[in-house]
Amino acid sequence: MSGSEFGKIFRISTWGESHGPGIGVVVDGCPAGLPLSEADIQVFLDRRKPGQSKYTTKRNETDSVEILSGVFEGKTTGTPISLLVRNQDQRSRDYGNIATLFRPGHADYPFTEKYVIRDYRGGGRSSGRETIARVAAGAIASLLLKEVGITVKAYTKSIGPYTVPEEEYHYSEITENSLYMPSNETAAKAGEYISSLMAERDSCGGMIECIADGLPVGLGEPVFDKLDALLAQAVMSIGAVKGVEIGDGFAASASTGSRNNDPFFSENGSISKKSNHAGGSLGGLSDGSRLILRAAVKPTSSIARTQQTVNTKGENTEITVLGRHDPVIVPRAVVVVESMTAVTLADLLLRNMTATIGHVRKIYGK
Amino acid sequence: MSGSEFGKIFRISTWGESHGPGIGVVVDGCPAGLPLSEADIQVFLDRRKPGQSKYTTKRNETDSVEILSGVFEGKTTGTPISLLVRNQDQRSRDYGNIATLFRPGHADYPFTEKYVIRDYRGGGRSSGRETIARVAAGAIASLLLKEVGITVKAYTKSIGPYTVPEEEYHYSEITENSLYMPSNETAAKAGEYISSLMAERDSCGGMIECIADGLPVGLGEPVFDKLDALLAQAVMSIGAVKGVEIGDGFAASASTGSRNNDPFFSENGSISKKSNHAGGSLGGLSDGSRLILRAAVKPTSSIARTQQTVNTKGENTEITVLGRHDPVIVPRAVVVVESMTAVTLADLLLRNMTATIGHVRKIYGK
Amino acid sequence: MSGSEFGKIFRISTWGESHGPGIGVVVDGCPAGLPLSEADIQVFLDRRKPGQSKYTTKRNETDSVEILSGVFEGKTTGTPISLLVRNQDQRSRDYGNIATLFRPGHADYPFTEKYVIRDYRGGGRSSGRETIARVAAGAIASLLLKEVGITVKAYTKSIGPYTVPEEEYHYSEITENSLYMPSNETAAKAGEYISSLMAERDSCGGMIECIADGLPVGLGEPVFDKLDALLAQAVMSIGAVKGVEIGDGFAASASTGSRNNDPFFSENGSISKKSNHAGGSLGGLSDGSRLILRAAVKPTSSIARTQQTVNTKGENTEITVLGRHDPVIVPRAVVVVESMTAVTLADLLLRNMTATIGHVRKIYGK
Amino acid sequence: MSGSEFGKIFRISTWGESHGPGIGVVVDGCPAGLPLSEADIQVFLDRRKPGQSKYTTKRNETDSVEILSGVFEGKTTGTPISLLVRNQDQRSRDYGNIATLFRPGHADYPFTEKYVIRDYRGGGRSSGRETIARVAAGAIASLLLKEVGITVKAYTKSIGPYTVPEEEYHYSEITENSLYMPSNETAAKAGEYISSLMAERDSCGGMIECIADGLPVGLGEPVFDKLDALLAQAVMSIGAVKGVEIGDGFAASASTGSRNNDPFFSENGSISKKSNHAGGSLGGLSDGSRLILRAAVKPTSSIARTQQTVNTKGENTEITVLGRHDPVIVPRAVVVVESMTAVTLADLLLRNMTATIGHVRKIYGK
Repeated sequence: MSGSEFGKIFRISTWGESHGPGIGVVVDGCPAGLPLSEADIQVFLDRRKPGQSKYTTKRNETDSVEILSGVFEGKTTGTPISLLVRNQDQRSRDYGNIATLFRPGHADYPFTEKYVIRDYRGGGRSSGRETIARVAAGAIASLLLKEVGITVKAYTKSIGPYTVPEEEYHYSEITENSLYMPSNETAAKAGEYISSLMAERDSCGGMIECIADGLPVGLGEPVFDKLDALLAQAVMSIGAVKGVEIGDGFAASASTGSRNNDPFFSENGSISKKSNHAGGSLGGLSDGSRLILRAAVKPTSSIARTQQTVNTKGENTEITVLGRHDPVIVPRAVVVVESMTAVTLADLLLRNMTATIGHVRKIYGK
Repeated sequence: MSGSEFGKIFRISTWGESHGPGIGVVVDGCPAGLPLSEADIQVFLDRRKPGQSKYTTKRNETDSVEILSGVFEGKTTGTPISLLVRNQDQRSRDYGNIATLFRPGHADYPFTEKYVIRDYRGGGRSSGRETIARVAAGAIASLLLKEVGITVKAYTKSIGPYTVPEEEYHYSEITENSLYMPSNETAAKAGEYISSLMAERDSCGGMIECIADGLPVGLGEPVFDKLDALLAQAVMSIGAVKGVEIGDGFAASASTGSRNNDPFFSENGSISKKSNHAGGSLGGLSDGSRLILRAAVKPTSSIARTQQTVNTKGENTEITVLGRHDPVIVPRAVVVVESMTAVTLADLLLRNMTATIGHVRKIYGK
Repeated sequence: MSGSEFGKIFRISTWGESHGPGIGVVVDGCPAGLPLSEADIQVFLDRRKPGQSKYTTKRNETDSVEILSGVFEGKTTGTPISLLVRNQDQRSRDYGNIATLFRPGHADYPFTEKYVIRDYRGGGRSSGRETIARVAAGAIASLLLKEVGITVKAYTKSIGPYTVPEEEYHYSEITENSLYMPSNETAAKAGEYISSLMAERDSCGGMIECIADGLPVGLGEPVFDKLDALLAQAVMSIGAVKGVEIGDGFAASASTGSRNNDPFFSENGSISKKSNHAGGSLGGLSDGSRLILRAAVKPTSSIARTQQTVNTKGENTEITVLGRHDPVIVPRAVVVVESMTAVTLADLLLRNMTATIGHVRKIYGK
Repeated sequence: MSGSEFGKIFRISTWGESHGPGIGVVVDGCPAGLPLSEADIQVFLDRRKPGQSKYTTKRNETDSVEILSGVFEGKTTGTPISLLVRNQDQRSRDYGNIATLFRPGHADYPFTEKYVIRDYRGGGRSSGRETIARVAAGAIASLLLKEVGITVKAYTKSIGPYTVPEEEYHYSEITENSLYMPSNETAAKAGEYISSLMAERDSCGGMIECIADGLPVGLGEPVFDKLDALLAQAVMSIGAVKGVEIGDGFAASASTGSRNNDPFFSENGSISKKSNHAGGSLGGLSDGSRLILRAAVKPTSSIARTQQTVNTKGENTEITVLGRHDPVIVPRAVVVVESMTAVTLADLLLRNMTATIGHVRKIYGK
């Protein structure tokens, strides 16, 4: 599993299981001189903390981060930044049937087939807690992006069948409801929907939208590391995400060229587009317009209902997943999508610095 | 632009512009002993050739491949395989206004901003001809996959608003209609739709679906190089693709856990799933079921209609894209999606070989 | 500084400064099922511990390792293995003039020029303590190699002008003298030499030799990741190493083809070489003979003598490096060279597993 | 063999066998706007051409390069630069016993063990012709370095036992003798030595020294991609190179700290060193002084004498390597060492551009 690394220059390497000693990430390649404190990272981690609403698990997780290296007197030194978040709950309690049963919708079965051995405590490496490392890295990436005026923001576009149409967005309301939707009204309906599912011991999914403003034109490295391609990998790599789209995405496939093309126009010497069906990406490069991406999140796989499955002996049996689980993980995944987007943009921002001889001369003063 | 490489072990490095001397790819890391000939690759290249139906451009392109290295006496030697496809049309003809105008929907503007200099002849590096290298590499990857019983197949799921529902699939019909749809009936309707758009000098897009069978359980490298994550990057990196989904994808976000979870069951000692909403990927690893992914392709950006745009001087103006262009590129992109899927699977197949100590002992006979 | 990673499949990512919270490494790509405990790693760390002889600093460093992830019930799980070694001495004591003066032979000056900011506490990232992470990773690599019968051993070939000629090697004596030389007699003379230098507040260097037995034929990935090429990078990346050679190395440049070529011969069906001037590497691949490499280690840069230098203001001045320092670091570097060799071999061992279609078929049972 | 790639940003991917259709390289990541023509590259290729003196083979090789992509109107576009050099001699002539015998000193045996199949025509991938791709890439790297005032120069330090001491260097004489030595006098003696070896159907090796001036302070990416570490890999990866050293190298291992440390001093506001035992590298970063490295080249393995060996059946036998071979490859390897040094420096030059937040702000104008 040498796949726990992401990025070419702003490179993150994550590690950790849900019930091992801890979760962490090494960020290698962050430029020197960036102001950074544990508090800066904690703010991001707190956004994914559970128990913040009746729709998220009540498990008491206090995930506090420790900076182990790469920062001196409040600034990054250009050396690897190592971050550690200790797991609170490590006691070898009874994980019941998870050890011997394959939970539907979970990675238990393929993990066991691939590695033979599997850390079955709470999902191990494939637990949602793995995202702690992504969010910690995302916090650093966001600070780096802010240095050049780039901002990234994610929110809940839909919960089950309840979607907020773009014309009804109220960004200010995102933090006013526990589902992080840009519409308190839709959030209220979605909340009732979730409650009804909880009563039926069922779960649901939703859509997360992420936007980025202030991007310089030209971020992205054709042809395989295009802006949209790396964002697709970054977001799809988040557990439970089953689809990714940029701009009009799937809707564009049913449109026509005359409607889907965004005309360019010039105003006060700056070039922009009259519409943004492209979602800020042309030919895999940022085009100066707002970056827009959406992620489809599947319903929580852990449901209290009894389900058919197979045990490690290969025998047919039933399973009832115990413990408290989020009826919907979308609200907690919002900051994860935002973080992976920030990490991707930070890496492409640095990679773009060597695009021309002009840049080389500028840095070396020739 | 150091982004023209894909894969960790089965690594492809592509190059070439539409009107330069040629297009090519270097495949490094293909195991030695694989039977390979230029004919094997030509079969794939011919599938993306234009002029095969009235819906694709009439440009006369005969793309014949030459193997420059890595093959000896009909077999791969384990050394880099270099493939070259010469461009026929290199004469420095008049590219008209493309050189000084930014075509809506194209990469002209961000490319010029990023690199200052731009090869404006027919789109240069961002031309659809770039995919020739992807398809050539895909041919080799497919042969490698076939060695272990893995098959990959792509087809047109929809053209504009005309979609083939799964229950009406007739795989045998895919090669019977020039749109590569698994339904001649829908293909006929879609054909009329395309004709009507051509009359209006407009274009359309569509959806491509790709399936893979025979995958061993466990392909994928968590947490960033998961099966679905790398497929998302691979497919989204194809020009004109604006969205990617696995299994139920976006539909899953509106479903519930009880409906979306695929129950496991055991039969004759082998484990499988009663349904496949997951599309063959659990926790980012192949789960033994059929792999299913869909790509959303936007409408062709080059349309004969007059559009508003800006020139390289930053002045507002109009553009009418000349020359013959496909009213829909979906049919020609089918083999490209299939090829990128094959390349991704080939790399993960090789990467999975070091997953356990058992595998290490098996290879080294200890 | 995104250069703290080494290896393609068995990938290590190190971090940490000498006086920060700790030093560590993330090992990603180690096969699942390898028995591993903190004790296994501690054995290696103890070999580089200071204060083991009168020739090494008396600083009291007890470097105990903690496994933070990747191991479950005594075995590796195939997920990233995170290792942490806390630094004992973190109190912000007076680092005297190191903060404002550039120590001759040290990285102070170029680090300050490159990153502007520098963690001047005890050398920061460029401190010898950085090698703790290399040794911890080397312990895991050595266990992996042992699974297929590969052993790696390093020792001190020379201290200053005192060299042990190959014909006088007594491997059993390596652990009998505090300089880790394969000759107690030479070690005694070298010891007196070191004592005399200490009296003069001076230091010396030496040569470390590393051998590996049991290598399968064919390890190495031409043309840039050849066995000898990666070993050269791995060993030269160790602080204080100024030269690397394989087999006869520099001596070969003064030899002739008839003397330097190693004739092949066959015995009982196995092929070997009558001599080993090549040091076990032909064309960048292991050839079945013993791997032999040597590293040239420069004299300790930190000496108590007053030296000319420049301060951070760019003014000429003098410096007297305070504190206890090893008069020679060679003995402590022995395990570091051995570890980097093991890490390199472990990665190439795994990379070689995909060399042929035969191997692919063997793993997937086709 | 996925090891034919070198560099992280200025990334080169080489391919080709000695008697296949051709040899080539793809350079991905070269900044846009660099003036480049086939003539610029040809100058470098001509320097490694054989038949330039009586000490190099008389084979008639005219290696002319073709630029296949990445250059438009005389300048690089930032897209991959593909270079092709066709092989002249491809006719399937009789390679005699090379196909069935393992040549001593060559890669025949380990290649066959690793890949089972082997292109035995003239050494295939492990032929000296492989270096054509390195030199072609080196030409581009050198042009890039020149843009910021960095120059790289290699020459022959010694042939067999004939060495030119530094105090007798006459750089102007390097191009005056066919051995590329900085001393016509020593070159004359070395020439006689080579002639005598030719009479005995024997061969010899030598040492190549490479220097680089104008390097900015701070090039190198600790801890594994240090300047000296990557140079060691780059140079050791060249066939026949058995050792690499920086500055005083192995001699430093016998020196003392007081003699080996280079004192810093300041003059007219610029910092430099009073001596350069370090060879321009401190802590793995360029220190502003001249970079100095040496490579030990083994004697040519192909000698006309009859040697003992084993055939592919594993039987003991004899071999007499036919055909014309250089009695010493050092003169032709000079440009290869220079090229690999240039490629390494070009990559580190670009990687260093993201070292600080100050650089990021400078590029993005914030």
